[in-house]
Amino acid sequence: MESLTFKSAANSLYFHSPKHSSIKASRLQFFRSSSTAPYHSFLPERHASLSPSIGLKLHEICVNPIMAVQDASLASEPVAIVIDGKSIAKQIRNEIAVEVSRVKDALGIVPGLAVILVGSRPDSQTYVRNKKKACEAVGITSQEVHLPEDSSEEEVLTAVSRFNVDPTVHGILIQLPLPKHMNEEKIVNAVSIEKDVDGFNELNIGRLAMQGRAPLFVPCTPKGCIELLTRSGIKIEGKRAVVVGRSNIVGTPVALLLQRHNATVSIVHSRTNNPAEITREADIVIAAVGVANLVRGNWIKPGAVVIDVGINAVDDPTSQRGYRLVGDVCYEEACKIASAITPVPGGVGPMTIAMLLSNTLASAKRLHNFQ
Amino acid sequence: MESLTFKSAANSLYFHSPKHSSIKASRLQFFRSSSTAPYHSFLPERHASLSPSIGLKLHEICVNPIMAVQDASLASEPVAIVIDGKSIAKQIRNEIAVEVSRVKDALGIVPGLAVILVGSRPDSQTYVRNKKKACEAVGITSQEVHLPEDSSEEEVLTAVSRFNVDPTVHGILIQLPLPKHMNEEKIVNAVSIEKDVDGFNELNIGRLAMQGRAPLFVPCTPKGCIELLTRSGIKIEGKRAVVVGRSNIVGTPVALLLQRHNATVSIVHSRTNNPAEITREADIVIAAVGVANLVRGNWIKPGAVVIDVGINAVDDPTSQRGYRLVGDVCYEEACKIASAITPVPGGVGPMTIAMLLSNTLASAKRLHNFQ
Repeated sequence: MESLTFKSAANSLYFHSPKHSSIKASRLQFFRSSSTAPYHSFLPERHASLSPSIGLKLHEICVNPIMAVQDASLASEPVAIVIDGKSIAKQIRNEIAVEVSRVKDALGIVPGLAVILVGSRPDSQTYVRNKKKACEAVGITSQEVHLPEDSSEEEVLTAVSRFNVDPTVHGILIQLPLPKHMNEEKIVNAVSIEKDVDGFNELNIGRLAMQGRAPLFVPCTPKGCIELLTRSGIKIEGKRAVVVGRSNIVGTPVALLLQRHNATVSIVHSRTNNPAEITREADIVIAAVGVANLVRGNWIKPGAVVIDVGINAVDDPTSQRGYRLVGDVCYEEACKIASAITPVPGGVGPMTIAMLLSNTLASAKRLHNFQ
Repeated sequence: MESLTFKSAANSLYFHSPKHSSIKASRLQFFRSSSTAPYHSFLPERHASLSPSIGLKLHEICVNPIMAVQDASLASEPVAIVIDGKSIAKQIRNEIAVEVSRVKDALGIVPGLAVILVGSRPDSQTYVRNKKKACEAVGITSQEVHLPEDSSEEEVLTAVSRFNVDPTVHGILIQLPLPKHMNEEKIVNAVSIEKDVDGFNELNIGRLAMQGRAPLFVPCTPKGCIELLTRSGIKIEGKRAVVVGRSNIVGTPVALLLQRHNATVSIVHSRTNNPAEITREADIVIAAVGVANLVRGNWIKPGAVVIDVGINAVDDPTSQRGYRLVGDVCYEEACKIASAITPVPGGVGPMTIAMLLSNTLASAKRLHNFQ
């Protein structure tokens, strides 16, 4: 049988020594580089678990001229249409606000979201605050239970149970990550499937995977990726799609969702031998691996559409904050090759909260059998 | 954006007229040919629902010299190792028999399978008889409820409920297809997840899709495919795998399973524009679409491993029965290109029952916490 070898020139960019241009090297690049300078990958919308612990120098992987892509197919100027997630999310929020009013007028009920936050992580607190603000802006009520870091699993489960039976709550969200001493799977699965607006319940994922079955909720970020495509007039059916990353919260569900839209889907992951070559086959690339600038320009087929889910903080002394946010895709290179691309920030990010609002509204409508 | 065009020479074999060598033609071939002569695709192990209603002349698609593959890469003699499913299944059944004895000796309990058959389809009756025989041969007890065709859904659900609480029953199998007036999804989902030896429950499929989650049972035919590979010494990790077909009972779960084994997986389906080209990228091809001889020799990369799940009956006047069984893969062509291939019959077929026995045994061991 023909062995899988490391064919992609793209990958060799990470390594100076020819001895590294092997399958092993190809695999390694997903997790670490030869550099040890720190960078942090964080994913504002509860995607922290996506991110492996790695160290990369941003400049080494995307800007350093020694390592720069020397590909004749690269245009010198950006050619890609920028998919403006901020603007699309705003439009969706406006549509939701209108629909929330319609539900209120017709039924006298207001869709409600409950958020459970455990501990005092500043990022989690920010995300919860943003979600509550977003609810308020569209007329969805929100309530929060904030439990201390040292709460017991039972205390969290009690809060979940209370919201499960509360008729004013149509969606329940457990802000992740939970403290390490808790069984996240158990707590997330305790959320009533009818209120699982995150769509992370195993039953929902099973239905998403199966033909002829309808999940009650589609996970927010994957749903946001599809909305970005369809609202930008990009046809999915019949296209080849590559999803980079196979996390439970983005990679896997977005792949299942693309397939439901009749794309031909491949998933590239840390054990994939030739990720650049495979990604280059795609008409639609969705990068959701949590590694800054992993997807280089020459991973992209000319004219492909690129949806970048990653939000990674990299050291940047020129910035006031000392860091800046970049995606999983090397934007500077990809925008010269792709036909359309999402920026980071301002691409997928704003869509996640919009889809959370959309799921909460849908839940309230379903409960009251309202079209 | 570059459009997906119909690039594969392989597909044009189906069509004489150049006007058909289009995306449309490529899609059509999954469902019908220009011929109207009947052939029947049936899948002995409850895979009837895989099979689209189509008409093909066997000779036109795999033997007719006018349409024969003219590919320089084709060897004139078979080169593939034949993966002997019959022999591997026998070995597994022997191992199960030993283990059933060990459970009996240690715990005094006998693993038990219950089968629910509704109606009088001769094929279903044969499959149920074969399953009961296979149980008997390894020491697993079996019992059957046979309900008339015009039973109500409630009567079937009552039988399911009874087995759900019967401590001597460790596995419950609903023989599919059920009569048309019944909601198959509802009945299959009524089987207790702890006894769902078919693994078709949505919760099981969800767990199969998610990292870090363990399905209680892996669906039998997909599990059989993986066993054939691993017991033949074929490494899955890091390989490119293409699954042709996305049914709930084979295509989708086998793709999820290959990914759990760290293959890089793509699913080719009826809306895929260039199935031959994509399949040709694979080191491992699993064909589970229920279309006789769909996968031609030039869909296969030289040296690839081919697992053929399809069992299709095609007219054959030279056979006593008037038909013969062929797979979804054109065996005569593929065996000259692949490094290993399963025959039809005698490949995947015998593995399905073996895996049903394996799941029933595992269920009994799990219930009694026996290693």
